[in-house]
Amino acid sequence: MTSAPTSPARHGLFTSGEPVRSWTVSTAKPVRYEVGFAPGVLDPANPALARAGAPAGGPAPARRLLVVESTVDALYGERIRAYCAARGLDHAVHVLPAHERLKTMDAVFSVVEAMDRFGVSRRSEPVAAVGGGVLMDVVGLACSLYRRSTPYVRVPTTLIGLVDAGVGAKTGVNFGSYKNRLGSYHPAAQTLLDPAFLRTLDRRHVSNGAAEILKMALIKDGALFRLLERYGAVLIAGRFQGGAAREVLSRAVHGMLQELQGNLWEHDLERIVDYGHSFSPTLEMRALPELLHGEAVCLDMALTTVIAERRGLVRPLERRRVLATMRELGLPVWHRLCTPEVLGEALADTVRHRDGSQRLPLPLGIGRAVFVDDVTPDETAAAARVLRHHHEHAGEARDA
Amino acid sequence: MTSAPTSPARHGLFTSGEPVRSWTVSTAKPVRYEVGFAPGVLDPANPALARAGAPAGGPAPARRLLVVESTVDALYGERIRAYCAARGLDHAVHVLPAHERLKTMDAVFSVVEAMDRFGVSRRSEPVAAVGGGVLMDVVGLACSLYRRSTPYVRVPTTLIGLVDAGVGAKTGVNFGSYKNRLGSYHPAAQTLLDPAFLRTLDRRHVSNGAAEILKMALIKDGALFRLLERYGAVLIAGRFQGGAAREVLSRAVHGMLQELQGNLWEHDLERIVDYGHSFSPTLEMRALPELLHGEAVCLDMALTTVIAERRGLVRPLERRRVLATMRELGLPVWHRLCTPEVLGEALADTVRHRDGSQRLPLPLGIGRAVFVDDVTPDETAAAARVLRHHHEHAGEARDA
Ligand SMILES: NC(=O)c1ccc[n+]([C@@H]2O[C@H](COP(=O)([O-])OP(=O)(O)OC[C@H]3O[C@@H](n4cnc5c(N)ncnc54)[C@H](O)[C@@H]3O)[C@@H](O)[C@H]2O)c1
Ligand SMILES: NC(=O)c1ccc[n+]([C@@H]2O[C@H](COP(=O)([O-])OP(=O)(O)OC[C@H]3O[C@@H](n4cnc5c(N)ncnc54)[C@H](O)[C@@H]3O)[C@@H](O)[C@H]2O)c1
Repeated sequence: MTSAPTSPARHGLFTSGEPVRSWTVSTAKPVRYEVGFAPGVLDPANPALARAGAPAGGPAPARRLLVVESTVDALYGERIRAYCAARGLDHAVHVLPAHERLKTMDAVFSVVEAMDRFGVSRRSEPVAAVGGGVLMDVVGLACSLYRRSTPYVRVPTTLIGLVDAGVGAKTGVNFGSYKNRLGSYHPAAQTLLDPAFLRTLDRRHVSNGAAEILKMALIKDGALFRLLERYGAVLIAGRFQGGAAREVLSRAVHGMLQELQGNLWEHDLERIVDYGHSFSPTLEMRALPELLHGEAVCLDMALTTVIAERRGLVRPLERRRVLATMRELGLPVWHRLCTPEVLGEALADTVRHRDGSQRLPLPLGIGRAVFVDDVTPDETAAAARVLRHHHEHAGEARDA
Repeated sequence: MTSAPTSPARHGLFTSGEPVRSWTVSTAKPVRYEVGFAPGVLDPANPALARAGAPAGGPAPARRLLVVESTVDALYGERIRAYCAARGLDHAVHVLPAHERLKTMDAVFSVVEAMDRFGVSRRSEPVAAVGGGVLMDVVGLACSLYRRSTPYVRVPTTLIGLVDAGVGAKTGVNFGSYKNRLGSYHPAAQTLLDPAFLRTLDRRHVSNGAAEILKMALIKDGALFRLLERYGAVLIAGRFQGGAAREVLSRAVHGMLQELQGNLWEHDLERIVDYGHSFSPTLEMRALPELLHGEAVCLDMALTTVIAERRGLVRPLERRRVLATMRELGLPVWHRLCTPEVLGEALADTVRHRDGSQRLPLPLGIGRAVFVDDVTPDETAAAARVLRHHHEHAGEARDA
């Protein structure tokens, strides 16, 4: 803290003739969290979940509230309870249905009430969030708000959860018609990644998660793109089990964390990981519940790939490979909401979100990105027309 | 970020025979904010409010949403609008009634909707919160949540606001029956202190704010205590206008910021500024709307002063001076809710809040504090009996 009866000029404060007193507080909040693979996380022999979020060297928490998504509870609830029982954990399970339309403050309140009932202690009893991106975003926000921040850990059970929602610091819920309008930066102390959960995930949700992997590939990891290009369909069908899948998941998580490490609070609004997230928030919310998150992200990536091609940033062959890979992954490249009006509104809200500029990431070839501020409505509309044609002639395009 | 296919032992992660990959993100969030006196803040010749929250050296924000507490709007609304008009500010005023029972998420949502209507940009249009502690806590939380954090500035109009709620980093609302159960650490970029607002504040709310000044005095500033002891009644009657008041306000703000600077996120749960805030949250919520925040804090301080006296930490004469000063400041020392049951429950929730230990600040003489973990129900009950007697024989005590 600096403190002084300062000259008003220095602080821009008004003076009424006397020296005006002012103070500056300057500090930094240290943040540290872990993300790691934890195969067999529900195996009672595996201590990871019981210990998750414990201070280094400290004892495992004696009490644990688990918030489990309802479908996950139906599939894994017995194993979760058996795990807690086997490890002698004083626990309670709060079951919460979660999908995009339930990503609301009411869901957050339901978690808060469960925390009150359980009597969660402020620092030493991290809550466990077990579910997909929606469940983790909701529990993360509840824990962020509870007593102004309570620790939690994450066990993602969807592909989006494993490579994206479970890896970063963001929490959030939708509010009004806006996607993630309310939220916080509050990373889980620890995230345990067990791809085995994907075995029960339906194909569409696997494709959905593949969109976020494709995002990382397109903006910063050409080798990852080639893996997706080659094995995409197989990975989806095989629910990302096995060695090649592990390599793909690892690269995706690694790339994401590399980007987040230096910019966790988004002080820098030029984030390449925002690729695919410029038009998609509005598309996703308008189409609810028709489009999944990753599907909306893919529409956005298809659109910006074509815009980039028209600007000479991506070659026609590269554009074809990208769109073909999207198709292989079971993802859409066009949707009837991709109208000039909706895309225009989407970009306008994103400009507010990026503080007055587009800061629009565009792909540069495959595996790199640039930022532009000058995409015009005409460009966007033209790209949408190209994709509509592509969509309507998908069979022919396959051979083009 | 450290990343490695590590030995499972190092990370405590389960291994399935293969090396288990994990990552550690380690970073720090820089935080900087200003608090300063700004006399004549609504004078159109004073640029402080127009510039508030602007980046150093940057231009004043061109647009500003102001959230103004409804009583403040009735008293100062015209001057606020005239100020904005005179300075050519594109602005909107959102009027919000605020008192302890309206300190809820619904109030936060009302601010969020106003932000959506105004189309607040993410970084460059800090919202202004003009009102008491409740209004600032609510606006602070709304801005904390909006797009995961939007800047704001504070113009406190009550005494609690000037010396406490406007100075720290905490935001919050009540939830269920719990005080400040939901909130965040999100300091205003700038707080402008203008004691002139206190001229219209009723006497009880001035006393209420004096409790937080007394808190700072008792735990860390003996000289400040002597000022309150000597001028307390005069300061209250004169609404903290003039030179002596300025000295008292300055010392209180300075002490508070000194304590916060190194522990803004309460990593250290032994906070002397929590003095008076161990039993009071529950007392305040149970008595709603009968007890004001500072009144509940004063009951807590009276109780812990007597506990400290009985432990030999405070001398009888010091205890008498403290209780006499509370009376001079128009503050209560006992309330019928100070029963063993309520005080027991209050301490139990505080123990959860302080992660399993009492960490109870007790005064050491006048101007210093110590922490204890072993206050018993008997001690608390005995102290409450002493204060009840004191309360019922206030006239006689005055001469004791
Ligand atoms: N916080 C972040 O950084 C971040 C990053 C990316 C996405 N997200 C958010 O994540 C959300 C999307 O996440 P999602 O795709 O996981 O959606 P989701 O949470 O809605 O889960 C999808 C569906 O899968 C079901 N499910 C979950 N696990 C299952 C399993 N193992 N087997 C069978 N069914 C299972 C659920 O019941 C749900 O219906 C979006 O709201 C998005 O905004 C957040
Ligand atoms: N965030 C923090 O660090 C912090 C610190 C201390 C207290 N608080 C919180 O602050 C709240 C108490 O604040 P408060 O005492 O300002 O109460 P308050 O905000 O309820 O205001 C008290 C009353 O004063 C009126 N008022 C405000 N300014 C006025 C003026 N200039 N003239 C006439 N009337 C005016 C208001 O209409 C209101 O009815 C509590 O909720 C407490 O938890 C927060």
